[in-house]
Amino acid sequence: MSDRPNTPLLDKMQFPADIRALSKEQLPQLADELRQEMISAVSVTGGHLGAGLGVVELTIAIHYVFNTPNDKLIWDVGHQAYPHKIVTGRRDRIRTLRQGGGLSGFTRRSESEYDPFGAAHSSTSISAALGFAIANKLSGEPGRAIAVIGDGALSAGMAYEAMNNAEAAGNRLVVILNDNDMSIAPPVGSLRNSLARLVSSSKYLSVRGVAQKLARAMPDALHTAAKRMEEYARGMMAGGTLFDELGFYYVGPVDGHDVRALVEVLENVRDADIGPILVHAVTQKGKGYAPAENSADKYHGVVKFDVVSGIQAKAAAGAPSYTSVFAKALSAEMQRDEKVVAITAAMPSGTGLDKVAEAFPERTFDVGIAEQHAVTFAAGLAAQGYRPFATIYSTFLQRAYDQVVHDVAIQNLPVRFAMDRAGLVGADGATHAGSFDLAYLCTLPNFVVMAAADEAELCHMVHTMALHDSGPIAVRYPRGEGRGLALPEAPQALEIGKGRIVRQGNKVAILSLGTRLAEAEKAADQLEAKGLSTTVADLRFAKPLDEDLIRGLLTTHQVAVTVEEAAIGGLGAHVLTLASDEGLVDGGLKIRTMRLPDRFQDHDKPERQYDEAGLNAPHIVETVLKALRVNSAGVEEARA
Amino acid sequence: MSDRPNTPLLDKMQFPADIRALSKEQLPQLADELRQEMISAVSVTGGHLGAGLGVVELTIAIHYVFNTPNDKLIWDVGHQAYPHKIVTGRRDRIRTLRQGGGLSGFTRRSESEYDPFGAAHSSTSISAALGFAIANKLSGEPGRAIAVIGDGALSAGMAYEAMNNAEAAGNRLVVILNDNDMSIAPPVGSLRNSLARLVSSSKYLSVRGVAQKLARAMPDALHTAAKRMEEYARGMMAGGTLFDELGFYYVGPVDGHDVRALVEVLENVRDADIGPILVHAVTQKGKGYAPAENSADKYHGVVKFDVVSGIQAKAAAGAPSYTSVFAKALSAEMQRDEKVVAITAAMPSGTGLDKVAEAFPERTFDVGIAEQHAVTFAAGLAAQGYRPFATIYSTFLQRAYDQVVHDVAIQNLPVRFAMDRAGLVGADGATHAGSFDLAYLCTLPNFVVMAAADEAELCHMVHTMALHDSGPIAVRYPRGEGRGLALPEAPQALEIGKGRIVRQGNKVAILSLGTRLAEAEKAADQLEAKGLSTTVADLRFAKPLDEDLIRGLLTTHQVAVTVEEAAIGGLGAHVLTLASDEGLVDGGLKIRTMRLPDRFQDHDKPERQYDEAGLNAPHIVETVLKALRVNSAGVEEARA
Repeated sequence: MSDRPNTPLLDKMQFPADIRALSKEQLPQLADELRQEMISAVSVTGGHLGAGLGVVELTIAIHYVFNTPNDKLIWDVGHQAYPHKIVTGRRDRIRTLRQGGGLSGFTRRSESEYDPFGAAHSSTSISAALGFAIANKLSGEPGRAIAVIGDGALSAGMAYEAMNNAEAAGNRLVVILNDNDMSIAPPVGSLRNSLARLVSSSKYLSVRGVAQKLARAMPDALHTAAKRMEEYARGMMAGGTLFDELGFYYVGPVDGHDVRALVEVLENVRDADIGPILVHAVTQKGKGYAPAENSADKYHGVVKFDVVSGIQAKAAAGAPSYTSVFAKALSAEMQRDEKVVAITAAMPSGTGLDKVAEAFPERTFDVGIAEQHAVTFAAGLAAQGYRPFATIYSTFLQRAYDQVVHDVAIQNLPVRFAMDRAGLVGADGATHAGSFDLAYLCTLPNFVVMAAADEAELCHMVHTMALHDSGPIAVRYPRGEGRGLALPEAPQALEIGKGRIVRQGNKVAILSLGTRLAEAEKAADQLEAKGLSTTVADLRFAKPLDEDLIRGLLTTHQVAVTVEEAAIGGLGAHVLTLASDEGLVDGGLKIRTMRLPDRFQDHDKPERQYDEAGLNAPHIVETVLKALRVNSAGVEEARA
Repeated sequence: MSDRPNTPLLDKMQFPADIRALSKEQLPQLADELRQEMISAVSVTGGHLGAGLGVVELTIAIHYVFNTPNDKLIWDVGHQAYPHKIVTGRRDRIRTLRQGGGLSGFTRRSESEYDPFGAAHSSTSISAALGFAIANKLSGEPGRAIAVIGDGALSAGMAYEAMNNAEAAGNRLVVILNDNDMSIAPPVGSLRNSLARLVSSSKYLSVRGVAQKLARAMPDALHTAAKRMEEYARGMMAGGTLFDELGFYYVGPVDGHDVRALVEVLENVRDADIGPILVHAVTQKGKGYAPAENSADKYHGVVKFDVVSGIQAKAAAGAPSYTSVFAKALSAEMQRDEKVVAITAAMPSGTGLDKVAEAFPERTFDVGIAEQHAVTFAAGLAAQGYRPFATIYSTFLQRAYDQVVHDVAIQNLPVRFAMDRAGLVGADGATHAGSFDLAYLCTLPNFVVMAAADEAELCHMVHTMALHDSGPIAVRYPRGEGRGLALPEAPQALEIGKGRIVRQGNKVAILSLGTRLAEAEKAADQLEAKGLSTTVADLRFAKPLDEDLIRGLLTTHQVAVTVEEAAIGGLGAHVLTLASDEGLVDGGLKIRTMRLPDRFQDHDKPERQYDEAGLNAPHIVETVLKALRVNSAGVEEARA
């Protein structure tokens, strides 16, 4: 407590109304204190630091100028909203960020009326803001909607779709482009070049300049053709016509760290009546905290750290992460086969493809936040004889589902999907959990879907994928560290659709898919201790199922339990369907499926999340015992 | 046969190489003949007519200038590719278009090496072309990739994502914008205005002008700053800077029906070396066939018609379509409740929202081909107290899956999803089938998912959705006509998660969801005739399941069969999971699930597709009888 920053002005700010009572001259001090408070809080909790530091002044200016919460402020992604949380009634809980039961690391409707629309995935803010703006237009309510979106998020198609529809909102919509020239990774794409030209080729707009420009653009003051000509003239100098073409009145660039100037620009914008306006603010990720400013990733995401030195707490040296094992395995395949290529959608470090790109820069593609394009681009590469690995978090692959169906599965093209962060993900919470991939992929014809039980298996599976040319194939693997197993010297090609028996018993069969295998083995130990001979199988493939193996297990054991870290519709559903298709349950087999619960689980420590989900060894044991007790056949053993 | 057009030149054209042997002077005649042949073919088969008529000259010019199939020609959507099919070795089968066993109505890899990438959904072509272009760049192969994309398709985010990534392809990529100012519906959005300005404000580019422009833009000839200035100057005149900003060299507009000019422009483009080029061709949908030119929809999709009069064959007067019933039901809700609003993604007539918009223009939104935006826009409207119906074909909702998960389900916002074209769709084939919605929606927490068994049920369900404010709710209904039932005078609010017993028996239970109910009832008749007393239930809800009803049926019948028109992972999987969770199958219940097969079904007549899928009454009977025979318990009855 003693090392908390001294924040006399901030201490009086509970809600935005308090800020609006300040004079403009007081705002720089408030910004300083808010920045210090945020650094202090994240030093305790860990989390997204760099993005929040970049928008401290924007946060204050927006709340100062606009009438939140009646005006709806929507932070794209929401990971930059920590300063916003501090000044919207949540300062008392800011040191619970991302902790179980604490504040979310993103915006969230259930947390505050100042979070009108939650987020965590990128590029949704303009669409949502349009929804609010049009609703107010329909009902005649006075409120505006303000979307704050980063330059990286603009590379996603849905941001463009929304901008193309923005004109109908008129001046009820304000988009603030938070241009820090860096989302999670260095930005890519032609749009980035346009923005850079824009910033480099023009002076920051003076406040007076904005006022003049807005006045000149008023419909009454200028007829349309001349207005258009002026826009193009501006575009010629500054490149802003992209936004003009999409129906916005472009204002900028403005210095996103000059809070007084920001306030005055936003006041002009608020009072203008010339249709939707896009304000281009230039900010610096990590601003105002030297260790962040000087680091390559601007402290995008950090663990606990020392405020003075900026040194982050070292985690106990653990096993290599699945991500790093995947990257090494993929690199080995790229070394072996020059047709193997790798694609990421703006997550090079999260997926390990940054390392892959160091070795194979020509064959590693970062397409920006553009999962849809990533998948169909991969399909094109596959159609021309390449072996693409589309390396996309399970939760983000949802963005490209139609491309997975329409361009990959229907055409049966051998695109390889490496789905990192499958299953529960800890502090990032429900928005980032990869819960649905088994349901949404296994329902598709032609797909092969694997889950790695451990890091050694992941190596075999990456190799298997590289060799699999007859259609699409996917592997899911979790966030975090592996089990610490030795990695295979030479990976083996797995037979498609074949699982393995990990231990053989004769009464209970546990059919595991993926990393719950360790818990299944623990459960088997506990069941054996109760006199219940237990088989544990690692199915490896959710599709196609190892029908021989499953048929054998189901017909020779009294109880069968499937275990997977996925929502309903995955392994369990497919095993049950096989069993019912073949009449295997007709004779009275006890079969149970264990899966993620039918609710969105909040952020928490992973071990607590698994416990809440009921997917640990004790839960498996309990499920088996309960099944055995259902009728008299198994009661004695179960109670032994 | 006698009324086939006289096509002496076309008769000699088997493949594009034949076209390339012609002189440029012969190309207009070839275009005329190709147009007549296409009209003749579609008059027999029905299908997409207007789009193909608009690209006859483009088809010839592209094949004349580029070296297909080594150069990869990718038609966006692919419904405009009938002329292309005629000149790429498929003329002998062109009168089998969209018929069972015949040519697909879209491009298709398995049909021809001249179809390097299949399509049917919009806006995938640039991504795929980039895949081919980059593959060739990596391998050092000489081929180009040419994407032909309509102006409507440009409103989809994935086209923008692809354009933003195009620069890396250099001159291996050519995008031809086929601007006919009309996709399926009148176009929307600001982009459309930009294109219109562009066409109206500048003269069509002369061939000489293109050559000069390309020459001037050569990197050697002009340094970058000056080039950029020239681009902006051009943009100022013509609005082309949108494409410049995205990394393309913009050329146009050119007259898309002047085949000789097109050839010369494309030759210039082919021989330029200034990075990816976008050629803006202006075409007319339905061009060259007066009845199409004069109709409002330009004969976008037609049934068989008389070539001379253009009069389309009248279908026998049948029951109203599900689409029209939906539109009426929704209009009634909008009349009743001013908070109900409707959203379509560029399918106003396909979804019936054109009729809704006539009555409620302020509350009906067409957002363009932009399903992602449509869903999150709906979520924003819902968050501000409106009751949005996102009316999107089942297959196209796949485009917005992440928005469904992240913006709607996780936030538990009451967005209503009306999923037309659920299940098999006949002549449009696998790409348009709505097979996966039950699997991909029922796996999501918070969702309510219904399927309408008939058009009267659809009315009740639309009303139920309008009233359901506690979270997301979806209804699926099929393509085509209803059963001819009387519609309810006043729709009832259904109890969420409650099914209904349609007929009561005691030995066999058929658990139906959706429109297979009619077949289930037929099957029940046949089973009764064999002495098997049969219950038929219409579950109405795939989620939440009517657990009481199902539990009751499963514990009081010898055999239970689920029937649904959806791929694995839907109703059957969820019923099995419930049954196994509760141990209902432990005692030897025979339970079977009937669903769409695990393969993509080709286009065919709907009745043949159902037969192939095994979802007609005889299949249900067979499944029941087979289940009863599995062990001795039911043998006697089954053989009686």
